[in-house]
Amino acid sequence: MQIRKINIREKADLITELHSYKIIAQMNDYYFKLVKAKRDFVWHQHPVTDEVFIGIEGRFKLATRDTVFEINEGEMIVVPKGVEHKPICEDECCIMLIEPKETINTGNAFGPLTDTNLQWI
Amino acid sequence: MQIRKINIREKADLITELHSYKIIAQMNDYYFKLVKAKRDFVWHQHPVTDEVFIGIEGRFKLATRDTVFEINEGEMIVVPKGVEHKPICEDECCIMLIEPKETINTGNAFGPLTDTNLQWI
Repeated sequence: MQIRKINIREKADLITELHSYKIIAQMNDYYFKLVKAKRDFVWHQHPVTDEVFIGIEGRFKLATRDTVFEINEGEMIVVPKGVEHKPICEDECCIMLIEPKETINTGNAFGPLTDTNLQWI
Repeated sequence: MQIRKINIREKADLITELHSYKIIAQMNDYYFKLVKAKRDFVWHQHPVTDEVFIGIEGRFKLATRDTVFEINEGEMIVVPKGVEHKPICEDECCIMLIEPKETINTGNAFGPLTDTNLQWI
């Protein structure tokens, strides 16, 4: 793959559709993904991997069964594998996720919000 | 490990020393590290892993043998494994690196700039 620099906000500006995960970079077997969202997501967990969320635009809440974290631009959180969590985007926001390529957005909770049709931007 | 949110710039503000890598997060067997730098680094490559650089404060150059990329705040670059590269920080900047825990900053080029004494902040 050709080496190129990636402007994260410029990539976000390319996204016109909510709830559609876009790949912007790959490091080894991990993807860096952007998603714009405005929804209350489903409780789920990822049994085999940690998952990183980084706030890019706006703010969102990341709920675990114990705590609700408010994640603003420039803030990140690592959800350990096996920990149930739910992102809550009351207002539209843009999130960067970092996780292994094969990670499914809904983890163990397959359903209508599952998105396996990831595209590069 | 306790789940906590991490404000990347607040972590950067804690760093008072140049060229000392600080760990701010772990995802599986990867570290997220911050370093403040003002130096011309050494040419090196990492034979077994890609390496991600994200501009946090200021700007820096990331040279490969073919190209010199200027990386500003909010921009990132993935250097593929085996590709010789050299970060050049003409002015002080803060960079976030993402790479496997065991990755050595100078890769295959051990020497006076090698830093294996990483601490969490």
